[in-house]
Amino acid sequence: MPKVLICYYSRSGNTKAMAYMIADGIRSADVDVDVKKVADVKPADLLRYDGLVFGSPTYYGVCAAELKSLIDKSVKYHGKLCCKVGGAFASSANVGGGNETTVLQLLQAHLIHGMVIIGDSEGDHYGPVSIEKPNKRVEKDCKEYGKKIAWLVKKLSE
Amino acid sequence: MPKVLICYYSRSGNTKAMAYMIADGIRSADVDVDVKKVADVKPADLLRYDGLVFGSPTYYGVCAAELKSLIDKSVKYHGKLCCKVGGAFASSANVGGGNETTVLQLLQAHLIHGMVIIGDSEGDHYGPVSIEKPNKRVEKDCKEYGKKIAWLVKKLSE
Amino acid sequence: MPKVLICYYSRSGNTKAMAYMIADGIRSADVDVDVKKVADVKPADLLRYDGLVFGSPTYYGVCAAELKSLIDKSVKYHGKLCCKVGGAFASSANVGGGNETTVLQLLQAHLIHGMVIIGDSEGDHYGPVSIEKPNKRVEKDCKEYGKKIAWLVKKLSE
Amino acid sequence: MPKVLICYYSRSGNTKAMAYMIADGIRSADVDVDVKKVADVKPADLLRYDGLVFGSPTYYGVCAAELKSLIDKSVKYHGKLCCKVGGAFASSANVGGGNETTVLQLLQAHLIHGMVIIGDSEGDHYGPVSIEKPNKRVEKDCKEYGKKIAWLVKKLSE
Repeated sequence: MPKVLICYYSRSGNTKAMAYMIADGIRSADVDVDVKKVADVKPADLLRYDGLVFGSPTYYGVCAAELKSLIDKSVKYHGKLCCKVGGAFASSANVGGGNETTVLQLLQAHLIHGMVIIGDSEGDHYGPVSIEKPNKRVEKDCKEYGKKIAWLVKKLSE
Repeated sequence: MPKVLICYYSRSGNTKAMAYMIADGIRSADVDVDVKKVADVKPADLLRYDGLVFGSPTYYGVCAAELKSLIDKSVKYHGKLCCKVGGAFASSANVGGGNETTVLQLLQAHLIHGMVIIGDSEGDHYGPVSIEKPNKRVEKDCKEYGKKIAWLVKKLSE
Repeated sequence: MPKVLICYYSRSGNTKAMAYMIADGIRSADVDVDVKKVADVKPADLLRYDGLVFGSPTYYGVCAAELKSLIDKSVKYHGKLCCKVGGAFASSANVGGGNETTVLQLLQAHLIHGMVIIGDSEGDHYGPVSIEKPNKRVEKDCKEYGKKIAWLVKKLSE
Repeated sequence: MPKVLICYYSRSGNTKAMAYMIADGIRSADVDVDVKKVADVKPADLLRYDGLVFGSPTYYGVCAAELKSLIDKSVKYHGKLCCKVGGAFASSANVGGGNETTVLQLLQAHLIHGMVIIGDSEGDHYGPVSIEKPNKRVEKDCKEYGKKIAWLVKKLSE
């Protein structure tokens, strides 16, 4: 059974809440998922999953340094994450506050690892974003995104 | 007296409304401003202004082809827009719908022309964005952005 | 048999040359491919392929308005391109001249259509880029990228 | 006399070399400059300069976590860096390897602080980039960029 890691950094709890919403979507599509804060993830752990979904609040337009540090250390396994599924989500204090650029930065890191990503034609296009505390719209987007991730993980694991 | 051009593309009227809100902010800081739809702007017109502020709805993550076409044609004056002030704004159908990437794409075009841009530490950081019809928050952001543009235009015209 | 469309805009011939190099890589992996200039592609044509790879020279940091116009018109089929494979490539006049932002803009458009994209851990990470005329490095990158696209198209068509 | 800080992270020495090339350009235009590695810069130091130019190698598409950490900590002075001049530069292992996205990420952080940035119509458009060790092209670009930064710092300090 394929397995996804959702790795997040969160101070206010908003990004953490999104992580669990996405996990719900992934599980509802019969894919296993671990949800961990970045402090509990070692670079070598990334190898054990079929999909990696990263989330962070928006700090100056990209992810928090704590998550960036994990990404930098993942260079030890450069080339070994190829063709896994990648995903990203972000929370921010306001609209136009950098949430899209944060999601895209995380997706770019996945692409540099040679990973595979998917967009959403209906909800938040690049990956789920929340302005402050996740509301009903965000919850729906996160669950749908989780389902998409699960679909792609299953397709590539066949 | 320095002068700014606000050039927009708009179908629903949302981006147009933002253009006039930014113009209010610019005028309130004693800088002259013309507001024109992109169909009424020729590349040579760009030379006559001290600041160029471009706005568009979000079409697949960047500005509408109509505005991009003007930008492409501005290559005729490449190097001659250096050091003018640039700005950007965008409207989109939903949060996470590409409004930040649209603003950034327009700012990148300004940078490639060698222009000068300014961010906002309080409102929408890269430039004003509206989800659907501009509300009070957007109106405030647009006016403040206009004042910033005007301040920079005056500084660089001294 | 799955089929990919490579759709490009080219004036100098550099982007066109890259299109055919990517096509070679795709064909070498037993996936069918059509290479067409953007003027010969109608929005409805996009529906008939399993993968869409777009290429353009770098005009002010993103693709040429001619290609952007096709992307804008593809809104007629919004939602119907979901889960197809997307790819992008770009040529530019110089390093740091906007080729990465052009590739990323095209990939963002694919994500907004709900499509699936893949990065490269070895060559140009987001998609092949050429500074001026494609050299041996670019040719190798384009062929490898074509193989990756073909692999993904086959996986998702199973 | 206005003063600029060039703050860099460098392991191989390539980014450090670029820092000193940009400093040469700034000094040649009669603006004072300090060049410091990020480990020697405290967030409060940022307040004392009229311009802040950040440089980093490209680690997964953006700056190194060490520099991102300084940027994150600068939130303590959010709003107090407004209207200072910002700049950015990057080195990477290969063309299309994320150098443009690194420069843009650093510029976005400056914009979020409300700072003012300038592009280059001739050289690397968003900010200087080097593929591996800086060559003559990079040296010229860095010096010209330094002059532009100096011009803008003087204009805004008047």
